[in-house]
Amino acid sequence: MIRHTVVFRLKHAPGSPEEGGFLRAACALEQIPGVRNFECLRQVGSKNPYTFGLSMEFDSQAGYDLYSAHPDHEAFVRERWIPEVAEFMEVDYVPFRP
Amino acid sequence: MIRHTVVFRLKHAPGSPEEGGFLRAACALEQIPGVRNFECLRQVGSKNPYTFGLSMEFDSQAGYDLYSAHPDHEAFVRERWIPEVAEFMEVDYVPFRP
Repeated sequence: MIRHTVVFRLKHAPGSPEEGGFLRAACALEQIPGVRNFECLRQVGSKNPYTFGLSMEFDSQAGYDLYSAHPDHEAFVRERWIPEVAEFMEVDYVPFRP
Repeated sequence: MIRHTVVFRLKHAPGSPEEGGFLRAACALEQIPGVRNFECLRQVGSKNPYTFGLSMEFDSQAGYDLYSAHPDHEAFVRERWIPEVAEFMEVDYVPFRP
Protein backbone atom coordinates (compact mmCIF):
# COMPACT_ATOMS: atom_id res chain seq x y z
CA MET A 1 0.00 0.00 0.00
CA ILE A 2 1.14 3.51 -0.85
CA ARG A 3 -0.60 6.48 0.77
CA HIS A 4 -0.39 9.69 -1.23
CA THR A 5 -1.07 12.86 0.75
CA VAL A 6 -0.90 16.52 -0.10
CA VAL A 7 -1.30 19.41 2.31
CA PHE A 8 -2.07 22.82 0.83
CA ARG A 9 -3.30 26.38 1.15
CA LEU A 10 -5.61 28.01 -1.38
CA LYS A 11 -5.48 31.51 -2.84
CA HIS A 12 -9.21 31.84 -2.06
CA ALA A 13 -10.65 33.53 1.04
CA PRO A 14 -11.60 31.08 3.80
CA GLY A 15 -15.26 30.12 3.53
CA SER A 16 -15.63 31.64 0.07
CA PRO A 17 -17.67 30.00 -2.71
CA GLU A 18 -14.43 29.66 -4.67
CA GLU A 19 -12.90 27.66 -1.83
CA GLY A 20 -15.92 25.35 -1.70
CA GLY A 21 -15.86 24.89 -5.45
CA PHE A 22 -12.22 23.92 -5.44
CA LEU A 23 -12.65 21.46 -2.59
CA ARG A 24 -15.64 19.76 -4.21
CA ALA A 25 -13.65 19.41 -7.43
CA ALA A 26 -10.72 17.96 -5.47
CA CYS A 27 -12.98 15.41 -3.82
CA ALA A 28 -14.13 14.19 -7.23
CA LEU A 29 -10.63 12.74 -7.66
CA GLU A 30 -11.95 9.91 -5.50
CA GLN A 31 -13.73 8.59 -8.59
CA ILE A 32 -10.50 7.82 -10.46
CA PRO A 33 -9.97 4.04 -10.71
CA GLY A 34 -7.54 2.55 -8.19
CA VAL A 35 -8.05 5.25 -5.53
CA ARG A 36 -8.77 3.76 -2.08
CA ASN A 37 -9.64 5.40 1.26
CA PHE A 38 -9.86 8.89 -0.18
CA GLU A 39 -10.15 11.62 2.45
CA CYS A 40 -10.77 15.37 2.36
CA LEU A 41 -9.04 16.88 5.39
CA ARG A 42 -8.79 20.15 7.20
CA GLN A 43 -5.29 20.91 8.47
CA VAL A 44 -5.89 22.18 12.01
CA GLY A 45 -2.36 22.35 13.44
CA SER A 46 -0.58 25.64 14.05
CA LYS A 47 2.92 24.49 13.07
CA ASN A 48 2.70 24.75 9.28
CA PRO A 49 1.15 27.20 6.78
CA TYR A 50 -1.43 24.80 5.28
CA THR A 51 -5.22 24.65 5.75
CA PHE A 52 -6.43 21.56 3.84
CA GLY A 53 -5.24 18.12 2.88
CA LEU A 54 -6.09 15.16 0.69
CA SER A 55 -5.16 11.57 1.43
CA MET A 56 -5.64 8.50 -0.74
CA GLU A 57 -4.21 5.01 -0.96
CA PHE A 58 -3.16 2.78 -3.84
CA ASP A 59 -2.56 -0.94 -3.82
CA SER A 60 0.73 -0.47 -5.67
CA GLN A 61 3.01 2.03 -7.37
CA ALA A 62 1.40 0.98 -10.67
CA GLY A 63 -2.00 2.13 -9.35
CA TYR A 64 -0.47 5.43 -8.24
CA ASP A 65 1.08 5.92 -11.68
CA LEU A 66 -2.24 5.23 -13.41
CA TYR A 67 -3.90 7.85 -11.18
CA SER A 68 -1.20 10.44 -11.90
CA ALA A 69 -1.56 9.94 -15.65
CA HIS A 70 -5.38 9.75 -15.66
CA PRO A 71 -6.96 12.49 -17.83
CA ASP A 72 -9.25 13.61 -14.97
CA HIS A 73 -6.24 14.07 -12.67
CA GLU A 74 -4.22 15.86 -15.32
CA ALA A 75 -7.14 18.19 -16.08
CA PHE A 76 -7.63 18.92 -12.37
CA VAL A 77 -3.96 19.81 -11.94
CA ARG A 78 -3.96 22.04 -14.99
CA GLU A 79 -7.32 23.76 -14.57
CA ARG A 80 -7.76 23.97 -10.78
CA TRP A 81 -4.61 23.07 -8.82
CA ILE A 82 -2.05 25.26 -10.55
CA PRO A 83 -4.24 28.39 -10.74
CA GLU A 84 -5.89 28.12 -7.30
CA VAL A 85 -3.32 26.66 -4.87
CA ALA A 86 -0.99 29.12 -3.13
CA GLU A 87 1.44 26.56 -1.65
CA PHE A 88 1.54 22.84 -1.00
CA MET A 89 3.65 19.84 -0.03
CA GLU A 90 3.25 16.24 -1.12
CA VAL A 91 4.06 13.44 1.32
CA ASP A 92 3.86 9.77 0.31
CA TYR A 93 3.96 6.97 2.84
CA VAL A 94 4.32 3.24 3.09
CA PRO A 95 3.73 1.56 6.47
CA PHE A 96 6.52 -0.41 8.11
CA ARG A 97 7.51 -1.94 11.43
CA PRO A 98 11.04 -1.01 12.57
CA MET B 1 -11.36 12.47 15.35
CA ILE B 2 -8.05 14.31 15.13
CA ARG B 3 -5.14 12.74 13.24
CA HIS B 4 -1.72 13.90 14.37
CA THR B 5 1.09 13.30 11.87
CA VAL B 6 4.73 14.22 11.81
CA VAL B 7 7.12 13.73 8.91
CA PHE B 8 10.83 13.87 9.70
CA ARG B 9 14.45 13.18 8.80
CA LEU B 10 16.99 11.80 11.28
CA LYS B 11 20.58 12.82 11.84
CA HIS B 12 21.51 9.11 11.73
CA ALA B 13 22.84 7.28 8.68
CA PRO B 14 20.13 5.34 6.78
CA GLY B 15 20.02 1.73 7.95
CA SER B 16 22.22 2.42 10.99
CA PRO B 17 21.59 0.84 14.40
CA GLU B 18 20.98 4.36 15.73
CA GLU B 19 18.20 4.86 13.19
CA GLY B 20 16.58 1.56 14.18
CA GLY B 21 16.83 2.41 17.85
CA PHE B 22 15.15 5.75 17.35
CA LEU B 23 12.33 4.29 15.29
CA ARG B 24 11.63 1.54 17.81
CA ALA B 25 11.50 4.12 20.59
CA ALA B 26 9.15 6.25 18.48
CA CYS B 27 6.83 3.29 17.92
CA ALA B 28 6.55 2.79 21.68
CA LEU B 29 4.53 6.04 21.76
CA GLU B 30 1.67 3.81 20.60
CA GLN B 31 1.35 2.61 24.22
CA ILE B 32 0.31 6.02 25.54
CA PRO B 33 -3.38 6.00 26.55
CA GLY B 34 -5.78 7.51 24.02
CA VAL B 35 -3.59 6.82 20.97
CA ARG B 36 -5.54 5.12 18.15
CA ASN B 37 -4.44 3.76 14.76
CA PHE B 38 -0.75 4.44 15.37
CA GLU B 39 1.43 3.98 12.29
CA CYS B 40 5.17 3.99 11.62
CA LEU B 41 5.69 5.18 8.06
CA ARG B 42 8.44 5.54 5.53
CA GLN B 43 8.20 8.71 3.47
CA VAL B 44 8.86 7.53 -0.10
CA GLY B 45 8.04 10.61 -2.18
CA SER B 46 10.72 12.71 -3.86
CA LYS B 47 9.08 16.11 -3.33
CA ASN B 48 10.10 16.82 0.27
CA PRO B 49 13.25 16.26 2.39
CA TYR B 50 11.76 13.76 4.87
CA THR B 51 12.29 10.02 5.17
CA PHE B 52 9.95 8.81 7.95
CA GLY B 53 6.59 9.62 9.44
CA LEU B 54 4.33 8.85 12.37
CA SER B 55 0.55 9.00 12.31
CA MET B 56 -1.88 8.56 15.18
CA GLU B 57 -5.47 9.43 15.92
CA PHE B 58 -7.29 10.76 18.98
CA ASP B 59 -10.99 10.75 19.70
CA SER B 60 -10.86 14.40 20.74
CA GLN B 61 -8.59 17.37 21.34
CA ALA B 62 -8.64 16.41 25.03
CA GLY B 63 -7.09 13.04 24.18
CA TYR B 64 -4.46 14.76 22.04
CA ASP B 65 -3.64 17.13 24.91
CA LEU B 66 -3.30 14.22 27.36
CA TYR B 67 -0.86 12.54 24.95
CA SER B 68 1.20 15.70 24.52
CA ALA B 69 1.51 16.13 28.28
CA HIS B 70 2.11 12.44 29.07
CA PRO B 71 5.47 11.86 30.81
CA ASP B 72 6.48 9.17 28.26
CA HIS B 73 5.87 11.61 25.39
CA GLU B 74 7.68 14.45 27.13
CA ALA B 75 10.66 12.19 27.87
CA PHE B 76 10.76 10.96 24.26
CA VAL B 77 10.77 14.53 22.93
CA ARG B 78 13.50 15.60 25.33
CA GLU B 79 15.76 12.53 25.17
CA ARG B 80 15.32 11.29 21.60
CA TRP B 81 13.43 13.69 19.32
CA ILE B 82 15.36 16.91 19.98
CA PRO B 83 18.84 15.35 19.86
CA GLU B 84 18.26 12.92 16.96
CA VAL B 85 15.87 14.60 14.48
CA ALA B 86 17.42 16.82 11.80
CA GLU B 87 14.19 18.40 10.52
CA PHE B 88 10.47 17.76 10.74
CA MET B 89 6.99 19.09 10.10
CA GLU B 90 3.81 18.40 12.05
CA VAL B 91 0.50 18.18 10.22
CA ASP B 92 -2.80 17.65 12.06
CA TYR B 93 -5.99 16.72 10.28
CA VAL B 94 -9.70 16.41 10.84
CA PRO B 95 -11.84 14.81 8.11
CA PHE B 96 -14.60 16.79 6.48
CA ARG B 97 -16.90 16.74 3.47
CA PRO B 98 -16.94 20.01 1.46
